[in-house]
Amino acid sequence: MGLAEDVLRGDRLALARWLTWLEEDDPRGDPVLAELFPRTGRAHRLGVTGPPGSGKSTLVNQAAAWCRKQSSERVAVLAVDPSSPFTGGAILGDRIRMRDLAGDKGVFIRSMASRGALGGLSRRTAELVEALDAAGYGRVFIETVGAGQAEVDIARMADTTIVVEAPGMGDDIQALKAGILEIADVLVVNKADLPNAAATERALRASLELAAGRPGSWTPPVVSTVAESGQGIDLLMEAVDRHRDWLRQSGEGEARRRARAASRLDSELQHVLIERFRRGLSDGRYDAALAAVLERRRTPAQAADELIRERG
Amino acid sequence: MGLAEDVLRGDRLALARWLTWLEEDDPRGDPVLAELFPRTGRAHRLGVTGPPGSGKSTLVNQAAAWCRKQSSERVAVLAVDPSSPFTGGAILGDRIRMRDLAGDKGVFIRSMASRGALGGLSRRTAELVEALDAAGYGRVFIETVGAGQAEVDIARMADTTIVVEAPGMGDDIQALKAGILEIADVLVVNKADLPNAAATERALRASLELAAGRPGSWTPPVVSTVAESGQGIDLLMEAVDRHRDWLRQSGEGEARRRARAASRLDSELQHVLIERFRRGLSDGRYDAALAAVLERRRTPAQAADELIRERG
Repeated sequence: MGLAEDVLRGDRLALARWLTWLEEDDPRGDPVLAELFPRTGRAHRLGVTGPPGSGKSTLVNQAAAWCRKQSSERVAVLAVDPSSPFTGGAILGDRIRMRDLAGDKGVFIRSMASRGALGGLSRRTAELVEALDAAGYGRVFIETVGAGQAEVDIARMADTTIVVEAPGMGDDIQALKAGILEIADVLVVNKADLPNAAATERALRASLELAAGRPGSWTPPVVSTVAESGQGIDLLMEAVDRHRDWLRQSGEGEARRRARAASRLDSELQHVLIERFRRGLSDGRYDAALAAVLERRRTPAQAADELIRERG
Repeated sequence: MGLAEDVLRGDRLALARWLTWLEEDDPRGDPVLAELFPRTGRAHRLGVTGPPGSGKSTLVNQAAAWCRKQSSERVAVLAVDPSSPFTGGAILGDRIRMRDLAGDKGVFIRSMASRGALGGLSRRTAELVEALDAAGYGRVFIETVGAGQAEVDIARMADTTIVVEAPGMGDDIQALKAGILEIADVLVVNKADLPNAAATERALRASLELAAGRPGSWTPPVVSTVAESGQGIDLLMEAVDRHRDWLRQSGEGEARRRARAASRLDSELQHVLIERFRRGLSDGRYDAALAAVLERRRTPAQAADELIRERG
């Protein structure tokens, strides 16, 4: 298989082509993943999430640059924009990144937009992360915007999840509402040079106390950064690496890998079962079920049950 | 069926109990929905979404109060917090709402947290909206936080989707990144008394032009509000009602109902197929497939294919 070899040799164009196949569900992507899958599991996967305007992209850029200065380890960034039905945001984001990290062959950056596929985003994102892992990137940043379920799902793909807030994004109620504190392994108050940074940090610490009773012995540290100038990036990455060590020692890393594999298996099952069921329906049967729902003669659950019972 | 009758009589406790059954997948919920389903399709469903801190809750409170002043139509608010794994945020939000709308028996407020169920949130939210519609609420507000895929899915349940932004939530790039403009029927710049409100409005209008080529002849209006004081709420609701008229006249309302029914049917099919498949697996077979993925002998897709092929 030529492409797999090219990817292992570090051919960036081959990697980009493979990622596009996986993203577009092109059948040429799967055999390459099957061939390289035994090489996965070595990358440290860092999820980075937070509301729009918190400065996540700049923070990830600086963290990637920090990693490159520390070691020869290669770094990949996968920027996922679950809400963008058009790719404008992603493309614009890329241009800004390119300016900072251009020319470093040890950094690979990729954006994904959702293209409106219901439920398919986490599945495809997981495959792209596996591909980057297999390709030998030692750190894979998975960056997502916002605070929705899709972001929580994507954060679950990470070994270490960084939640970024910025001053003035909201008061203590908003900190609760954002609600992703429970999945945070490291909390960042970015733009810490803004006036109410101290209040934001207090609100985060208060929310953390409310969310007490996390599994295991890890207490998420709160780190202040100014991503624009690079201030605090070293402290952030030290916290990240302490978390990586804790994952290894506590067994939590293994538990997370296990939960991740189960969730991947489930979503593949879901995908294949639906595809197969649709192919097996006789002409017009689906439309008849849909009409029954539209005319309110059947609830969606009743119509689905009937379709499935008919096929036996 | 006693409960269905109680709900139709306007018994709020009966309605609350039914909603809990639907939310918790309690089998007692479905027969009530089947009985009352023919009564659905009358409510105007208003989706309200936007980033944390944009003042959505206050805006929805004021809009609900406005509706109550205009007519005898009853109003329901379903606040969905897809990212909250614990209910703290939702409960706190309710308390704040209660203060404003307490005592009006024509208003029904309900919060939902996701409880971490992958993919199940939209399905359950749709059922709760159907229930409120069947119970005779003429306006149903569906409020969601953030800008993720889950919010986009939930907005798709609405007839009219209101996207709320606030000044200082980010620059023009962020407006693109938020990326939910394509689903907005009405855009709101809330907190319009803040200094850079005009800049936010300009950024939104510019983003709207970039996103040109929307289906149909509707151009989303941009409305400025100060939800705290109620300023602009009348203009907002007039824009909302113009959109409702347009939905009727253009046929787009019918097209949306059709797309909604199809998406509901699909998610029910998915739900039932997976449940049935899991029940049919022999002991240990799932765990063996999971172990193969964990040990990297099989990709998730390969393991799922094998499980399904075995069962024939």
